Amino acid sequence: MNSFGTIFRLTSFGESHGKGVGGVIDGMPAGVEIDMDFIQKELNRRRPGQSSIVTPRKEGDKVEFLSGIFNGYSTGTPIGFVVYNENQHSSDYDNLREAYRPSHADYTYQQKYGYRDHRGGGRSSARETIARCVAGALAKLALRKLSVDIRAFTSQVGPIKLPKDYTHYDLNKIESNIVRCPDADTAEKMIELIADVKSEGDTIGGVITCVIKNVPVGLGDPVFNKLHADLGNAMLSINAVKGFEYGMGFDGVQYRGSEMNDVFIKKDGKVSTMTNHSGGIQGGISNGEDIYFRVAFKPIATILRDIRTLDYAGNEINLKAKGRHDPCVLPRAVPIVESMAAMVILDHYLLNKTRHMD
Amino acid sequence: MNSFGTIFRLTSFGESHGKGVGGVIDGMPAGVEIDMDFIQKELNRRRPGQSSIVTPRKEGDKVEFLSGIFNGYSTGTPIGFVVYNENQHSSDYDNLREAYRPSHADYTYQQKYGYRDHRGGGRSSARETIARCVAGALAKLALRKLSVDIRAFTSQVGPIKLPKDYTHYDLNKIESNIVRCPDADTAEKMIELIADVKSEGDTIGGVITCVIKNVPVGLGDPVFNKLHADLGNAMLSINAVKGFEYGMGFDGVQYRGSEMNDVFIKKDGKVSTMTNHSGGIQGGISNGEDIYFRVAFKPIATILRDIRTLDYAGNEINLKAKGRHDPCVLPRAVPIVESMAAMVILDHYLLNKTRHMD
Amino acid sequence: MNSFGTIFRLTSFGESHGKGVGGVIDGMPAGVEIDMDFIQKELNRRRPGQSSIVTPRKEGDKVEFLSGIFNGYSTGTPIGFVVYNENQHSSDYDNLREAYRPSHADYTYQQKYGYRDHRGGGRSSARETIARCVAGALAKLALRKLSVDIRAFTSQVGPIKLPKDYTHYDLNKIESNIVRCPDADTAEKMIELIADVKSEGDTIGGVITCVIKNVPVGLGDPVFNKLHADLGNAMLSINAVKGFEYGMGFDGVQYRGSEMNDVFIKKDGKVSTMTNHSGGIQGGISNGEDIYFRVAFKPIATILRDIRTLDYAGNEINLKAKGRHDPCVLPRAVPIVESMAAMVILDHYLLNKTRHMD
Amino acid sequence: MNSFGTIFRLTSFGESHGKGVGGVIDGMPAGVEIDMDFIQKELNRRRPGQSSIVTPRKEGDKVEFLSGIFNGYSTGTPIGFVVYNENQHSSDYDNLREAYRPSHADYTYQQKYGYRDHRGGGRSSARETIARCVAGALAKLALRKLSVDIRAFTSQVGPIKLPKDYTHYDLNKIESNIVRCPDADTAEKMIELIADVKSEGDTIGGVITCVIKNVPVGLGDPVFNKLHADLGNAMLSINAVKGFEYGMGFDGVQYRGSEMNDVFIKKDGKVSTMTNHSGGIQGGISNGEDIYFRVAFKPIATILRDIRTLDYAGNEINLKAKGRHDPCVLPRAVPIVESMAAMVILDHYLLNKTRHMD
Repeated sequence: MNSFGTIFRLTSFGESHGKGVGGVIDGMPAGVEIDMDFIQKELNRRRPGQSSIVTPRKEGDKVEFLSGIFNGYSTGTPIGFVVYNENQHSSDYDNLREAYRPSHADYTYQQKYGYRDHRGGGRSSARETIARCVAGALAKLALRKLSVDIRAFTSQVGPIKLPKDYTHYDLNKIESNIVRCPDADTAEKMIELIADVKSEGDTIGGVITCVIKNVPVGLGDPVFNKLHADLGNAMLSINAVKGFEYGMGFDGVQYRGSEMNDVFIKKDGKVSTMTNHSGGIQGGISNGEDIYFRVAFKPIATILRDIRTLDYAGNEINLKAKGRHDPCVLPRAVPIVESMAAMVILDHYLLNKTRHMD
Repeated sequence: MNSFGTIFRLTSFGESHGKGVGGVIDGMPAGVEIDMDFIQKELNRRRPGQSSIVTPRKEGDKVEFLSGIFNGYSTGTPIGFVVYNENQHSSDYDNLREAYRPSHADYTYQQKYGYRDHRGGGRSSARETIARCVAGALAKLALRKLSVDIRAFTSQVGPIKLPKDYTHYDLNKIESNIVRCPDADTAEKMIELIADVKSEGDTIGGVITCVIKNVPVGLGDPVFNKLHADLGNAMLSINAVKGFEYGMGFDGVQYRGSEMNDVFIKKDGKVSTMTNHSGGIQGGISNGEDIYFRVAFKPIATILRDIRTLDYAGNEINLKAKGRHDPCVLPRAVPIVESMAAMVILDHYLLNKTRHMD
Repeated sequence: MNSFGTIFRLTSFGESHGKGVGGVIDGMPAGVEIDMDFIQKELNRRRPGQSSIVTPRKEGDKVEFLSGIFNGYSTGTPIGFVVYNENQHSSDYDNLREAYRPSHADYTYQQKYGYRDHRGGGRSSARETIARCVAGALAKLALRKLSVDIRAFTSQVGPIKLPKDYTHYDLNKIESNIVRCPDADTAEKMIELIADVKSEGDTIGGVITCVIKNVPVGLGDPVFNKLHADLGNAMLSINAVKGFEYGMGFDGVQYRGSEMNDVFIKKDGKVSTMTNHSGGIQGGISNGEDIYFRVAFKPIATILRDIRTLDYAGNEINLKAKGRHDPCVLPRAVPIVESMAAMVILDHYLLNKTRHMD
Repeated sequence: MNSFGTIFRLTSFGESHGKGVGGVIDGMPAGVEIDMDFIQKELNRRRPGQSSIVTPRKEGDKVEFLSGIFNGYSTGTPIGFVVYNENQHSSDYDNLREAYRPSHADYTYQQKYGYRDHRGGGRSSARETIARCVAGALAKLALRKLSVDIRAFTSQVGPIKLPKDYTHYDLNKIESNIVRCPDADTAEKMIELIADVKSEGDTIGGVITCVIKNVPVGLGDPVFNKLHADLGNAMLSINAVKGFEYGMGFDGVQYRGSEMNDVFIKKDGKVSTMTNHSGGIQGGISNGEDIYFRVAFKPIATILRDIRTLDYAGNEINLKAKGRHDPCVLPRAVPIVESMAAMVILDHYLLNKTRHMD
């Protein structure tokens, strides 16, 4: 289905070349102050054309709220919103009417629905992330009461990685460069690489790391709605994502249990753990420590080169892709990762209130 | 919630030291032949005590079906089933009544529910995987009609990895050794390592790879129920899982888009792709190629050594863990991974039937 | 939650005095021809100001589809739509800011959300039925393939009832008068009564009967999604509805079982029943006979008279209601009843496709 | 699907002639004292064979809890339970293997699943109400904290009705006679009628009224989860139910709005209403007044007479029904109505906790 969440739920709609994208947010708690500037800022963070390394399409995304907000506060009723599509060049896509773009969803769409809107990426395009951003911004506003702090940043582009883990960097530096990497040196190398890739008409992938601090203890259901499973589900639903890991992840499997245990200690009079290999979640439930996870993004499939593919009749053809594209989606995906994380945390916070009678 | 799936749905219950575990399977298609031997075999595959390298608890899991099956066929009505718990040593756990075991769910449980059943791992123990196995077996029976072929195997234990990708091995060899690795040499090294770890009273993690062949084209919803997102959600819900990746995964992010595209070609008169970096899923929808993914398992937290921890009053104490445990859960987790995969594929197959009117 | 349906699902938003109302329809089958004129006509049927007996507000509801439709056919992706609110007189409601209108949702809203949008009826107003109408129209379009025929009509206004059951009337006559009653004589009496009530500044209720023909056999789940339970749930969700009954309903409880059985016979070579006290549903599942049910509507609460009530501080005050209102909502509710019925039938039709593997 | 509820959710399984019936209850709040005697008593209330007017099958329903309860309190994890079937005479049903019983679900079942378990009523039999009773009992235990008081009683059997509304009777008298009617005189007439009907081998229907006091204000969602819509859905899901109405129901439609308004007044310093035609729910949300509703039960279809029907080949045959049956299900259905009401109120109470952040 096209909904995400249990209590705090987003139902989105819209294709890149339809009239607009938008959604309905159900379960927004009542009485939350709606900071419109904040929401617009969050939307702008995902906007292309911010710099030289992302796509030159200058989208002017302005969100229009149709319900659920009155006198600057959420009413608790569903929030409907729309962002109208401007600045789409449908003609860029005319030679694609009868062809499948490799690694795109074209073929699978055609098979699934027997009917495909060939314009742009359709429902699988990046524009549907607008709805996620709006919902994520509203979730962040609700979470202000809890001082939950969500920070995502680019930790790897191609082979270039941040040398240390997040605890070694000042996360307030994330927005100080266009790749959203908290280390200036690494950022510089990343920017250079992306520029090279762009000039070659190619694309490159990477990894986004996300850290969530001050999560209340006890969020998550122990079996099928484990907090990290919902976070993983959320991240894997983002376009171009190929992997998710939290805590010590794939790297940690080579170690012994004795090396990986997080021993309980007292810190400032509270229960805490000495290390945090778990990534803030044990048995699927948050334990109060930082939650941190990594999301792998593949290099996106549209490239500005000629490619060989098949048309609908199954004949091999040469296809020259047009359109305007990102050499690297990572910087734009950073706010999406935060949005999804905010939605999951808020949803679990609300769900957790149903655990007791009082 | 404690349910998994949309149409084909499992609702499970049971703790390791309660009377029994079980569940209700809703949405099982009617008229599927129920091969009881097959179900029992699948259950046995997860059973500990099979060999020297897994836990010595000899559980005799026999599943009792209470409804939904008549004259050897599914009726289409809910299937209720129970597996009674035998062979649990509650006294092994008596010294844990007031203590938190590190990296266990004890602390988080207590915080969440304000009330904890201290016996064994409670709801987070491995015994709740019984319900998943039963549901997975039923899903596999339903999928027989489609010739969907699901194979999982251990591809890494600690630092020991299979040297090549799955296409280089005969997957029929998986069951020929106790670690369930399709390469005899690698299997031998894995077994040796696990034995060492066991003798040290420690634990070790690893990676399970899963391959799904003959998946119908078109399964998955393009935005929030992407096929790989549901597979990831399923795998991350398994105990001890710390990461999920599909297709080229985390490794593929360092490459260029031009190196990663799966070009469409004709193979045996059908649309196919020349490479399969995508892992059989594009835009969240299956394209007919093999689906392959990897699941990272951390070394489990219970170790047969003294550990330092806190008790409920927050005092530091020394805890000697007792009980009987696995040095490595990978071999037992292989059938769980297959079960979850089967449930997801069947669920999406059924959901996909609702896309058109006819 | 603010969604209706399982597979074919409507998530709606919008208050009467917000910017607009609308919704997202998920699960619309792909490839259905979208007849825009039909949709607009269905919307117009609910529009006030059609005649002298309904409210004089002249709403110009024009629906704008933002996604999910391409080249005149449904794509299978979510359909987002908006209808902007015009013609609302907010000042009509200014004296209500601090007062509770009797039998209105004002008090309960305030208690629930701690925050109330006092303008109009908020989320509980009749304008939210627009979304239901749009969804119902789309459902009807999808159901054209099955020749399902849904007809609702006014069978009672105040004490004035249609003398016979539906089988005695020509249902094509429903739209030939403004109360939507298939019998001209009864319609005349109804119209007269409503005019009297209107002149007294009062309101009156009634009953809408709905008949659904050509329903496929086998729709409905035998325990918790019985077809009539979902129909009842749908109808009871409509504003002002106080009761639902199907088949022989409340009236039939006085009879013996021997008088009420529907005996199986052969009719035109098919299995049929001699009588149809069941109302086309047995054990919660459709049997192919006509489904018929009745929905009771109370007289709506807003009246053009002075009323005594309390303000927020709990003081008794006199309130003179303003605004423009319906003396009888029945004629406008007829298309809503049909819309909800269409949504339920389509949802169950799609759900029923998941019962078997083929 | 075979689940009921959103947060507090029951998933049930079991046919009358399978091994057993049972279910899983998810979302039971943690820390509720589990009074086993109370649960068994509630189950016994639905048991046949209590008196001369209900069915002579002496079922010994003893519920076995398999999880979710520890040391007499709910743990907050899913509660699995089973009640094994005894005392079923399968041979009573052998002549039904190839025949359809009129007004039974046989025909619809066969059409839906293509496969029918002919023994007894299958999934549509009264034994599946056991799961509802267990879930209802647990819900009532949770609701004890809120002093919610749920009373159902028989208000009509055949043409014999209670002369006045519930406010005129002492509801503590409900259990003092076998029809569960709070007025001794009316009860006597009802018992007499049922005995007559029984001796004729026939069946009779009736109406159950339910009153819920002390419901917190604010329960229910204003559009698609209106409290009365969920109550109606719950009641209509019970076997043999043909109608649901609340407040003034079908009877109230003949009155004017001016006659039906519930005017707000102050009572004991609290906001209250002078009358309660609304039935405690306005705009779909509870207002603190008594909720009262009526549920219509048809005379059940199995009768101890010869009937004419069709066999699977479509030939007309004479069928003599055997088995042992209730002449009137009303007394046994009273606790089911209460159980469903308790489940709905608890579900909405828990859901309502998610409306605000704190």
